[in-house]
Amino acid sequence: MTKGEGNMDLTAIKNPAFLKEMSNEELGELAASIRTFLIEKLSITGGHLGANLGVVELTLALHKAYNSPQDKFIWDVGHQAYIHKILTGRTADFDTLRQYKGMCGFPKRIESKHDVWETGHSSTSLSAAMGMATARDMMDEDYEVVPIIGDGALTGGMALEALNNIGDEKKNITVILNDNEMSIANNVGALHHVLGRMRSAGKYKRAKDEMETLLKKIPAVGGKLANAAERMKDSMKYFMVPGMFFEELGFTYFGPVDGHNFQDLEEAISYAKKTKGPKIIHVVTRKGKGYQPAETDKTDNWHGVGPYKIESGEKIKSAATAPAWSKVISEAVLEKARTDKRIAVITPAMILGSKLDNFKKEMPDRLFDVGIAEQHAATMAAGMATQGVKPFLAIYSTFLQRAYDQLLHDIARQNLNVFVGIDRAGFVGADGETHQGVYDISFLRAMPNFTIMMPKDENEAQHMVHTALAHEEGPIALRYPRGNALGVAVDDATHALPIGSWEVLKEGTDAVILTFGTTIPLALDASESLEADGISVRVVNARFIKPMDESMLHGIFGSALPILTIEEAVLKGGFGSGVMEFAEENGYDASSVRRMGVPDYFVEHGSVPEQMEEVGLTKENTIDKLRQIVRMNEQQRA
Amino acid sequence: MTKGEGNMDLTAIKNPAFLKEMSNEELGELAASIRTFLIEKLSITGGHLGANLGVVELTLALHKAYNSPQDKFIWDVGHQAYIHKILTGRTADFDTLRQYKGMCGFPKRIESKHDVWETGHSSTSLSAAMGMATARDMMDEDYEVVPIIGDGALTGGMALEALNNIGDEKKNITVILNDNEMSIANNVGALHHVLGRMRSAGKYKRAKDEMETLLKKIPAVGGKLANAAERMKDSMKYFMVPGMFFEELGFTYFGPVDGHNFQDLEEAISYAKKTKGPKIIHVVTRKGKGYQPAETDKTDNWHGVGPYKIESGEKIKSAATAPAWSKVISEAVLEKARTDKRIAVITPAMILGSKLDNFKKEMPDRLFDVGIAEQHAATMAAGMATQGVKPFLAIYSTFLQRAYDQLLHDIARQNLNVFVGIDRAGFVGADGETHQGVYDISFLRAMPNFTIMMPKDENEAQHMVHTALAHEEGPIALRYPRGNALGVAVDDATHALPIGSWEVLKEGTDAVILTFGTTIPLALDASESLEADGISVRVVNARFIKPMDESMLHGIFGSALPILTIEEAVLKGGFGSGVMEFAEENGYDASSVRRMGVPDYFVEHGSVPEQMEEVGLTKENTIDKLRQIVRMNEQQRA
Repeated sequence: MTKGEGNMDLTAIKNPAFLKEMSNEELGELAASIRTFLIEKLSITGGHLGANLGVVELTLALHKAYNSPQDKFIWDVGHQAYIHKILTGRTADFDTLRQYKGMCGFPKRIESKHDVWETGHSSTSLSAAMGMATARDMMDEDYEVVPIIGDGALTGGMALEALNNIGDEKKNITVILNDNEMSIANNVGALHHVLGRMRSAGKYKRAKDEMETLLKKIPAVGGKLANAAERMKDSMKYFMVPGMFFEELGFTYFGPVDGHNFQDLEEAISYAKKTKGPKIIHVVTRKGKGYQPAETDKTDNWHGVGPYKIESGEKIKSAATAPAWSKVISEAVLEKARTDKRIAVITPAMILGSKLDNFKKEMPDRLFDVGIAEQHAATMAAGMATQGVKPFLAIYSTFLQRAYDQLLHDIARQNLNVFVGIDRAGFVGADGETHQGVYDISFLRAMPNFTIMMPKDENEAQHMVHTALAHEEGPIALRYPRGNALGVAVDDATHALPIGSWEVLKEGTDAVILTFGTTIPLALDASESLEADGISVRVVNARFIKPMDESMLHGIFGSALPILTIEEAVLKGGFGSGVMEFAEENGYDASSVRRMGVPDYFVEHGSVPEQMEEVGLTKENTIDKLRQIVRMNEQQRA
Repeated sequence: MTKGEGNMDLTAIKNPAFLKEMSNEELGELAASIRTFLIEKLSITGGHLGANLGVVELTLALHKAYNSPQDKFIWDVGHQAYIHKILTGRTADFDTLRQYKGMCGFPKRIESKHDVWETGHSSTSLSAAMGMATARDMMDEDYEVVPIIGDGALTGGMALEALNNIGDEKKNITVILNDNEMSIANNVGALHHVLGRMRSAGKYKRAKDEMETLLKKIPAVGGKLANAAERMKDSMKYFMVPGMFFEELGFTYFGPVDGHNFQDLEEAISYAKKTKGPKIIHVVTRKGKGYQPAETDKTDNWHGVGPYKIESGEKIKSAATAPAWSKVISEAVLEKARTDKRIAVITPAMILGSKLDNFKKEMPDRLFDVGIAEQHAATMAAGMATQGVKPFLAIYSTFLQRAYDQLLHDIARQNLNVFVGIDRAGFVGADGETHQGVYDISFLRAMPNFTIMMPKDENEAQHMVHTALAHEEGPIALRYPRGNALGVAVDDATHALPIGSWEVLKEGTDAVILTFGTTIPLALDASESLEADGISVRVVNARFIKPMDESMLHGIFGSALPILTIEEAVLKGGFGSGVMEFAEENGYDASSVRRMGVPDYFVEHGSVPEQMEEVGLTKENTIDKLRQIVRMNEQQRA
């Protein structure tokens, strides 16, 4: 590769072996080149800029010190693995980053043997590391296991479970704690303060030297005091080691280390390599490092970005004609909260993502950001509901998976009035398979007592927010997709929708489409197209996914109209299956139902339209299916 | 109530108010009476004896010091709330403990206003407490929130998430840490050692006095050493407080306290009441206290017991003709592990429950008890699988709910060869609605790549264990019920079953029953009964729930035979729905399918046969349904 400040040819890199020979100065030049590359590339493709700029030196230092893929790097969350991708020969693929059939935004095992673990959701790396280290020891192999986890992800329950287990089992694992003082949202939680104290306490070695000198000054004492002095010596590490919290859990702590200083990083890693058992290297990094707009950003707007102008940092946005769905919902909740003091909001580290910043500004005492802790968030909401508070729990569909048991065992089983906002429901686009919000219908539908809604537009959305907050007969979930709403006019006053009521959007006499949310335009389109052929298709806004509009269903099945269900969610156990179940339970002809939805495999990254196309959620397929069921129905009647 | 040592009339207790006037001596007599009562009652009904004997004094002290239900007691897990039930007027109901329509074995809100939170699964109490305290502060109310959590439950991820949040938000909450040195299994994890050090470090107050004296002896120093001394003083609590771990997280620590000493308990609670913010009272108790066989038991066999002889402690068991299902599976895995060194076992604190004690004894290095940490267990298994180990992850169906996201995001999405043993699948009897294992089919079926099996008897079970361990194309789950297997003879050698293959158990020409596992005898019974009426019903062992036997299904649907599906699992999104989905996807007549299973509500405690009866999984219903579908089919053909 050609050297030169910030101007090296990164495409020449095939594997990280060349790093071994590099001086710190050369590493610095490489770091500059990587930053230039990332800032340029991501200005076009978008991506997780801030997190990657923060770990340039760290990633170089790790790949220099360890031997991947023999040694295992496990990138928690994984959106910070861009430099790792560059060093393992994928520079050229950045043109297709997060694009359909292009390079994944997260580690991906089929992309490279250096990607030993796939992520997307946070806090999995320590458990994966424990698994790999256990396998290594069982098989009598010899390699290093190095999970790299952010301070935000560390507070996820499963990461804490793993710390507890690793520290006890004394496994040889080197945890790299990437403390960037800012996860997706500002960090919250007591551990954040613990880390803060560690950062300010200075370095381990210095403290140790000072303490030894000090202890010599303590005069000899007898009796009780001798015991106390003994205990003090035994417990020396508690106050002289900034990382006593981790030491208590069985880890040897190294740090804090300047994550942008190659010398410091190398030294800490070298100490860790010489130490047996669980180790933690506390690395302090700066998110967005080296790109002024990202580095000085206090709002974490540079976490995951679309295209931007490099000079100014100005985001290049398509002129949005409508507000984001998250904003529609959060503003509607805020409006209700102004007159109902019982309303409160809980978010697991998603104030920005779920557009709750206005709520936080206006009612800081009624917004609770619990950090990356979906389980706690859900059960905390349940606790609030037992005392008459109306919690709005906003969680992305894909992260709600983390709270499955809390939804079932704590909320649904106790039939508590919790309002669950299921953000990013449906396909999510560039984040891909780890983040698709397509499972929530199948899992929530099986939980007794849950009501599930999805709005067709922002006007219906505000009525649904009203409905949810007025509902006092158990939990109620409102799904809404990623991206922008439709830009329709909204009513001045809101009202509650009758629970389980559907709405006929378009009349029709030959077939019925039952659908909701994002697939309604598809249904209307297909229905209109078929008019030219004399096929008359009714379109129903099945806005209550559970309970369904039984009265309307009795009417449809009673008149023996063929039915097509469409959902941007998994088919197995989904809404369409629910319609068939209704037919079976009521003695109707379930064979009159055909279903469209997401088939039984993981749908990868791309744009949402590409993902819809891939799984066949298209106008053409809808028309084909409709023709088919109308023809079959005619044949049966004939 | 009549007083007298161990002989008070507990049925006279209507509420806990009378405790306020009692001396410690009187409390001691009451404690003795309660122990006598529990030991006698539970010797007949069975129940969670050990845990309750351990918290007799603690519960009395809590109810004396606080004012329930104004103050909120939140019993984590909840099986230790028997004394709480006695003190809140439910003594007479112990005759029906855990019986059908009788008193629940856990706190239950409809039973008493003193039960403010329902539990069953562990580690929810701190999140619930945070919710209640937050609601209290929002509503400007004034009461104490007092979660009581065991040392085992504390290591569950959501409890750690809650600690992190409570400590940061400085909420007025008093956590009672019931450290009984033994949760369901022996405690594991680094936190266990942290608690151990706290127990041995002695009392807070004593340490504080000693330290203050000692610090005065340190001579004045200048420069660097002054800084170090300052830091030492600032950090005093780190080494003088045994609970520094909790202090670091923002809690004021009181303890360790002797949980069987009223004086100590009263003192600690009174200190806590005077202290603002998050507090933790570390109470050391002895499980089984006061009943020799339980107190001296090292194996925790007295955790949840059936009837027993009081004098000897001998368990009264119905003569089991067959081994427990858990034992069948774990022995089969052990047998395979003897010749395949890649096999390892992971259990979340269920060595005894899942009958893994033999495995632990024979291969201690290949059994990993990670404590109550289902999320970590699942992802650790995934990590092991990436390195070629074959992990057997044994988890009760109801607790597997805690690992939903790990099963989907880490195991299924990466298509890793993890063998999941779903223990206690189906109805669980006396533990009731919090523990029913009826959701796993609906949630696993929607996860791509997962194979799901359930055996008809222990012989098939051993072949399924072979199948699972030979399967190298992704995750595979084996469901097995609570209770004993059938007592059939088992083959000497095992073999792999073809994935997705079903088995015809009984031929028939008028209808087909598709069922698996526990409901097969029901199906065979019904089928045989109908023979007298000339109705010939085929019975199929649909042992692969996913993928289904598509070839057999094509045959059945092709011959237009009516189908009845039977499953001891929820109907919504269940196996029966899967059969209808198959019909829809393949253009067959889905109206030929009728389904039996668990309807959409939470089924309470009772015996398994009572639960089956309640939801209509009976021979009579099966016969009725079969008659119905055969008649309908004849009418359609006519």
